[in-house]
Amino acid sequence: MRYEVRLSGEGGQGLILAGIILGEAASVYDNLHAVQTQSYGPEARGGASKSEVIISDEPIDYPKVQEADILLAFTQESFDKYSPDVKEGGLIIVDSDGVKRTSAQKNVQIISIPFLRTAAEEIGRAIVANMIALGTIAEALEGRVKPESIEKAILARVPKGTEDLNKRAFDRGRQLYKERKG
Amino acid sequence: MRYEVRLSGEGGQGLILAGIILGEAASVYDNLHAVQTQSYGPEARGGASKSEVIISDEPIDYPKVQEADILLAFTQESFDKYSPDVKEGGLIIVDSDGVKRTSAQKNVQIISIPFLRTAAEEIGRAIVANMIALGTIAEALEGRVKPESIEKAILARVPKGTEDLNKRAFDRGRQLYKERKG
Repeated sequence: MRYEVRLSGEGGQGLILAGIILGEAASVYDNLHAVQTQSYGPEARGGASKSEVIISDEPIDYPKVQEADILLAFTQESFDKYSPDVKEGGLIIVDSDGVKRTSAQKNVQIISIPFLRTAAEEIGRAIVANMIALGTIAEALEGRVKPESIEKAILARVPKGTEDLNKRAFDRGRQLYKERKG
Repeated sequence: MRYEVRLSGEGGQGLILAGIILGEAASVYDNLHAVQTQSYGPEARGGASKSEVIISDEPIDYPKVQEADILLAFTQESFDKYSPDVKEGGLIIVDSDGVKRTSAQKNVQIISIPFLRTAAEEIGRAIVANMIALGTIAEALEGRVKPESIEKAILARVPKGTEDLNKRAFDRGRQLYKERKG
């Protein structure tokens, strides 16, 4: 089992933290191997942000995402750039306000969820959009990493006093995914 | 120019954040390519932590540290594990309380600095030991990444209200390195 997750959007959206939490959930709580990477090229200066997590049941020799199993795209730019590299049969999860135009050349599923709006309007803190996204990814992983492990990793990582807020956002993300999948 | 930095110690010492800041400094402020990685294996469950940054003036194909130019080791365990992988002519920076026994099979320089103690006793916050270490690394990089760029990346990343504290720690780290080097 090798599973590749790419989180993409803009700086300030907390995607690096989300990647770190997913890597820690897989390794510390679920006994898997994980590599979590930020690659910065000239695009970093434009404010683009990308965080990658590779999960495997054996040591990971090649730590770069080749074809993502799951792509999260918070912005149109990140969707346009990374959607061609999603695996046949893979999943793209987009923010419904950040990504207005979607299309795919191959058999991938695209799910649209208002992460940023839900964070700002329902939870009351735009900054937890990343945790809503983690909740969605937790479900999309279909048990490869346990949602309970991701929750533990969140609670171990977020600032003291914000645990409830982050847990609410995570739970809301899980629920939104289930509603979309029907 | 390809330059490899490995930061190693325990969870909770802020080494991942230090790695992220160094990667952002190199790319966003100094126009370099950078890859920043956490690899988690079974050792993650023992509390060990490792963060790697590779800096280059061209795109980075192989994103794993092969032979570190600089190793930071906050614990004896991390020194024992990673010191054999430091490049001939490379530099090992250890925390003087965390690493009591040092030795090297090849020509590497070892510098010992009381990061954790200076953070706790001088700056008053143990948590900024990672920023003191970044200050030390900023000098050891000898201009490959500008200290001013690392400072900017720190101020952009740390929680609002802690900028002064973190800058003081960073400056103290630069000074400690200069004192050691004479």
